[in-house]
Amino acid sequence: MESYNRDDIIFALATAWAQSALAVIRVSGEGCRALLAPSFSRPKALLEAENANLVHGYLTDGPGGAALDEVVVAVYTQGHGYTSEEALEFTCHGSLPGLRRILSSFRRLGMRNAEGGEFTFRAFLHGRMDLTQAEAVQELVSSQSERSQALALSRLEGTLKQQIQLSKERLLTLLAQVEVQLDYAEDEVDDFIFPSNELSEIIKAIRELASTYAVGRLYGQGARIVLAGATNVGKSTLFNLLLKQDRSIVSALKGTTRDYIEADCLIEGIPVRLYDTAGLRESVDTIERAGILKTEILIGQADLVVFLVDSSEVSHIPPKDDRTLIVYSKSDLFKTPQGELAISAQSGQGIQALVSAIGKRLSAGFGSTGDEQVIIESERQHLLLEGAADAMERALSLVEADIPLDIVAVELGEAMQNLGELTGEVTPADILTKIFSGFCVGK
Amino acid sequence: MESYNRDDIIFALATAWAQSALAVIRVSGEGCRALLAPSFSRPKALLEAENANLVHGYLTDGPGGAALDEVVVAVYTQGHGYTSEEALEFTCHGSLPGLRRILSSFRRLGMRNAEGGEFTFRAFLHGRMDLTQAEAVQELVSSQSERSQALALSRLEGTLKQQIQLSKERLLTLLAQVEVQLDYAEDEVDDFIFPSNELSEIIKAIRELASTYAVGRLYGQGARIVLAGATNVGKSTLFNLLLKQDRSIVSALKGTTRDYIEADCLIEGIPVRLYDTAGLRESVDTIERAGILKTEILIGQADLVVFLVDSSEVSHIPPKDDRTLIVYSKSDLFKTPQGELAISAQSGQGIQALVSAIGKRLSAGFGSTGDEQVIIESERQHLLLEGAADAMERALSLVEADIPLDIVAVELGEAMQNLGELTGEVTPADILTKIFSGFCVGK
Repeated sequence: MESYNRDDIIFALATAWAQSALAVIRVSGEGCRALLAPSFSRPKALLEAENANLVHGYLTDGPGGAALDEVVVAVYTQGHGYTSEEALEFTCHGSLPGLRRILSSFRRLGMRNAEGGEFTFRAFLHGRMDLTQAEAVQELVSSQSERSQALALSRLEGTLKQQIQLSKERLLTLLAQVEVQLDYAEDEVDDFIFPSNELSEIIKAIRELASTYAVGRLYGQGARIVLAGATNVGKSTLFNLLLKQDRSIVSALKGTTRDYIEADCLIEGIPVRLYDTAGLRESVDTIERAGILKTEILIGQADLVVFLVDSSEVSHIPPKDDRTLIVYSKSDLFKTPQGELAISAQSGQGIQALVSAIGKRLSAGFGSTGDEQVIIESERQHLLLEGAADAMERALSLVEADIPLDIVAVELGEAMQNLGELTGEVTPADILTKIFSGFCVGK
Repeated sequence: MESYNRDDIIFALATAWAQSALAVIRVSGEGCRALLAPSFSRPKALLEAENANLVHGYLTDGPGGAALDEVVVAVYTQGHGYTSEEALEFTCHGSLPGLRRILSSFRRLGMRNAEGGEFTFRAFLHGRMDLTQAEAVQELVSSQSERSQALALSRLEGTLKQQIQLSKERLLTLLAQVEVQLDYAEDEVDDFIFPSNELSEIIKAIRELASTYAVGRLYGQGARIVLAGATNVGKSTLFNLLLKQDRSIVSALKGTTRDYIEADCLIEGIPVRLYDTAGLRESVDTIERAGILKTEILIGQADLVVFLVDSSEVSHIPPKDDRTLIVYSKSDLFKTPQGELAISAQSGQGIQALVSAIGKRLSAGFGSTGDEQVIIESERQHLLLEGAADAMERALSLVEADIPLDIVAVELGEAMQNLGELTGEVTPADILTKIFSGFCVGK
């Protein structure tokens, strides 16, 4: 994406490029109705339709051209619909050759293929949503777990925007008080007491919001879990058992020719990329050493390592830490230590307990995040929130050190700037471009 | 599919199960609005919306439940829309976890997952389309070429239905004349002359329509083309060149571990499955013999064999026939026989001529099929048309042999029965079930 031309009429297939019963093609931009009406079997009905009305008819390949498809057109007049522009949404048959014919015909009419995120960009430009809501659109579409989808939906509804707005208003009020002091000579103002408590509370609210990033990222982007342990300890059996737990599994197992196997699944609602690794044991074999080296790299990058130990030989147990779960295997054959996780891959015994232990460990340290809480998922938002809080804390230190108020005001201004970038009020164009170009086409 | 219960409220994802900007969920059945309104953020707006109106809002997980997605609902009241039933179409975000949440919630509300083709089945039941149009829906969705999509669209518009209707009416008039004769004693009627010319014309029209099946099948289901010839004659290079000709190629090359490679492409608008085979030469090697055997089987099943001959050694040329194109390779290096197809895989010379020769050969014997002509693609329709024509021809022979009219009437009745089955007026339930269950879900 170079830079969006905002006056073009744009179009895109908004559903997946795959044979299916229905498909939707989006068109947006002033004049799109007048442009397309001559290529529609009922031009008058299309031109006269009110906002949010559906018109049934046939699309033709240009005025008087061959019939392309039977469609239902959703009509949005200016100021309504997703983009707040004049827009049309064609529900067509999900036929690939049919869609190809329609899309080519639209290009020939002089419309332009929409870039990724361009419809949402226009919605943002026309004030239909702020930047946090625009980001929520893509976070929603690309969510990998139901929790993450629900959290993104809440942000799309504006909960994050409102929460930031609240802090911004408080900070603005505080800043105004400071500005008043600065506008008058120092001697005219007797006893200005800087509202440090209020500022501390704003900082607290912002830090709390920023800290939800850990949860948001976990549910949004998922966790990497590595199954490790000696060879023949039962890692592959456990790997398959964990995959079977997830009945909503989407991506199939990826067989690789490398030295580990990976698969995506959900564990306790958290999207997980699970790795089954080469057995860890000392070896002189060069090829085997290479596999073990890769396992060690994977372990280094993991959010959690499930270390499987054969209950029969309990040597070589790694030290317990926050990132490692020790699990005794073959509990049906051997006695396992009291109070430790133990599974029998054969009977499936202990798997449920392991699954909840994994879920607990992954979300450990998050505190409780109620359904009502606003949770962020975007690194950009996290950085800006932390930046705002840092600036406000610097302001607080300056006040405590009796530094003149105009210096304090600079820090408060920076905090405001950060919050403004968060919601898109003062976000530079190149940052906007970067954000929207990561969206999928048709959004 | 056992048998459709026509009173259930049914629902289905009508777009592909894939992450995308938008997705559409269809719901149909009396009472669906009242059932879903309490799970919608604006129940009153939904309940009061007129036909073909769009309502924006949030779906919740049951009355008062958690928000599931922001949606736009297309409302169709009874007697309108695709099924002619009260129906709703939810345009949601194309988020897989989001769709999963919505679909589960719909199930919990007591609605039933639609079977394949069930929406179209209801449209058929309510007289919105006849059986030829219903079949055209699935033929359109699953079409593999633009020509086939356009032909299916024309049938969906009712061109085939009308043409059959015309023949049916003519036959009915004729049958009525015969019935009049049968209703009176023979002596009362003096000089009835059987309208043989009229019947012959009806037969001709039906046979012509039936004969279009060859074209329809070719554009709908495609052709199998096998590249054959000695090893090192340039088959693989030609294979890749032909694939490159098709700029709309959908399915990627399927590498196989067997002794040939296959790929789907379009040649002159005709969907083609192209096979690159093991070289044909005599061999004592067992494994190689197996590959050659497979090649011979492929050649046996092919619609067309492109036999590549090295221009340098022109021995081993198979006999020319309707199913074989002889093509001389390496035309840049060697002199090729005058008037024969010759290509240089290196320079690409002759490829265009080969492509049009393939197209011509595949559609040879079809006569010209204008854009206006109705063309059938369904084997069922083909068999019924031939059956009707056969019965009418038997009737004609009986008349010529002076067999009593009541026997003639039986044959004419069978022809009518065939035509009635074609449009679905007298189609047995199990046949209907078989037809619709082949449709994709959401249609």
